[in-house]
Amino acid sequence: MDTKPTAGFPSPALFLDSASAYRRSAALRAALELDVFTALGDGPLDAAALAARCGAAPRGMRILCDALAALGILQKAEGRYLLTMEASIFLNRTSPACMADGFLFLSSPHIQNAFRDLTSAVRRGGTSQTASDVLAPEHEFWLDFARAMAPMMAFPAESIAQLLGAERGDRWNVLDIAAGHGIFGIAVGRQNQNATITAVDWPGVLDIARTNAEAAGLAGRYRTLPGSAFDVEFGTGYDVVLLTNFLHHFDPATNEGLLRRVHAALAPQGRVATLEFVPNEDRLSPEFAAMFALNMLVHTPAGDAYTFTELERMFRNSGFGASEWHPLPPGPQGVVITSK
Amino acid sequence: MDTKPTAGFPSPALFLDSASAYRRSAALRAALELDVFTALGDGPLDAAALAARCGAAPRGMRILCDALAALGILQKAEGRYLLTMEASIFLNRTSPACMADGFLFLSSPHIQNAFRDLTSAVRRGGTSQTASDVLAPEHEFWLDFARAMAPMMAFPAESIAQLLGAERGDRWNVLDIAAGHGIFGIAVGRQNQNATITAVDWPGVLDIARTNAEAAGLAGRYRTLPGSAFDVEFGTGYDVVLLTNFLHHFDPATNEGLLRRVHAALAPQGRVATLEFVPNEDRLSPEFAAMFALNMLVHTPAGDAYTFTELERMFRNSGFGASEWHPLPPGPQGVVITSK
Repeated sequence: MDTKPTAGFPSPALFLDSASAYRRSAALRAALELDVFTALGDGPLDAAALAARCGAAPRGMRILCDALAALGILQKAEGRYLLTMEASIFLNRTSPACMADGFLFLSSPHIQNAFRDLTSAVRRGGTSQTASDVLAPEHEFWLDFARAMAPMMAFPAESIAQLLGAERGDRWNVLDIAAGHGIFGIAVGRQNQNATITAVDWPGVLDIARTNAEAAGLAGRYRTLPGSAFDVEFGTGYDVVLLTNFLHHFDPATNEGLLRRVHAALAPQGRVATLEFVPNEDRLSPEFAAMFALNMLVHTPAGDAYTFTELERMFRNSGFGASEWHPLPPGPQGVVITSK
Repeated sequence: MDTKPTAGFPSPALFLDSASAYRRSAALRAALELDVFTALGDGPLDAAALAARCGAAPRGMRILCDALAALGILQKAEGRYLLTMEASIFLNRTSPACMADGFLFLSSPHIQNAFRDLTSAVRRGGTSQTASDVLAPEHEFWLDFARAMAPMMAFPAESIAQLLGAERGDRWNVLDIAAGHGIFGIAVGRQNQNATITAVDWPGVLDIARTNAEAAGLAGRYRTLPGSAFDVEFGTGYDVVLLTNFLHHFDPATNEGLLRRVHAALAPQGRVATLEFVPNEDRLSPEFAAMFALNMLVHTPAGDAYTFTELERMFRNSGFGASEWHPLPPGPQGVVITSK
């Protein structure tokens, strides 16, 4: 059913489409698991040839690829399937911008399972016991996250470094809180050869960040500080603090406790760059930000997708000065830059 | 992230949206389970009032309803949520056209679980053992199906009866194969007071069909014939055979075996009405038909969404005459009417 309503005729199409939307995630995930997009990187193939390349059955491959083409994820011409420009950039594993692991992570059973609990999460107003473990120290989830999501974060990471003026080359001490894959601190360190990065996270995750930093040539300017962002001694005198995809996991009071610690760690002219899914004040757009709040509902006791007004208030309540909002199109996120 | 690409800028938005599309199914399902749409039937409510009505937490309800409003499933104005026209017709349980149980069925764990096996279904070219049990006799799935899907089939059922000319009131013997909820035969029987309906299905399902037929006032003209459509003795002299949502479960050879039995059961001027998800010849549109083929891949050994050409060929190979195609907009299905 097309989701476009027939003019003047009430249609259940949107609901039918929504009830069955999980099929889209399943189709993309199956194609990534079978590495269909890399197999098509050498040129168009019909279902039988593609099935042979991917170790699948022709009937299965034909039905899967027709579904992908119906969704616009592939193209089909004269009975053969071919990559769209976007698929060749973001889904083909030979592409440097490939985000295949990120899409596999976002559709992973671990995350989808938490959404099976959505009704009870709405009833209780937060995660169930079984889903909340993602906030536990050293949870394996964050190792997977750090490995999978780095390519998807490359664009926002470069954008944040630019917005901060990293290319001016000022002598910076940078604190990267909950560094994960480390990509945000690494982008600042690459754009500013005079920046030293201190990355805070759990030890297992910091191993991944350090590996990425060394691959980027930052070994001599990269320091790791293992522990919880809420407990570890940050030190003082930081020019820049990176606070990326972190505040959404916690309630405002918890965030303000952290922000007061961040305030104390900053040099007088220091700034904080906060990357978040930030809905508009009506909380309905961008759609991805509104939907992301569901993730926080099923995965955390009290996290949220905060509006700019709410983020600004948390900073002000923690002793900070002005905050500025910078959307990062075409992505779903934006960055708030706050002065001490 | 909006799925509209930024002009000239390659964007992974479609893939991000697809990877996370299961959230839409989860959001609609949670709202149906909490009966949010019926609670809003009396007028707009804010999150706290709606949470109190539905036995949920205000935070959970606010995040859920913002997501639904972002998806266009609800509206939001001045901090209160309200029904769209479509939601008031199709999701509110006080509406006679409510399809809530159908959407709950389509997003049920049973069906979603089968899609978790999609990668292996593509590899093997058909269902895994665990998912194939829906074709087993008397599977509980079909009782759930018969109870949940009747309201969603009301519109196609009335349309098919009209297309067949039921209102002319000719003395008809009607055979309803795999009758399920019975709604297709019942629609013919309601439009044609001179029609007698014979419904074939498993005994448990026929109990549901008979209950529906009696509620529609057809008790004296409704006969049930328990058993498999492939084995049971249909009898002869039928003027109309209804073959709705059945052929897609099987391969063409199996269908032709059935169609030869149908041919033998028909009177000389008899006709068959076949309701199906019928993709265009390129198999890419309508989108819902292309996606429905995935259901047949994960649930059956060799079923499919057949094109009109394929359906016409199966009928011709089974001894039938001409077939005509009638789409049933705005729904995703259409009906093929075939003469003996």
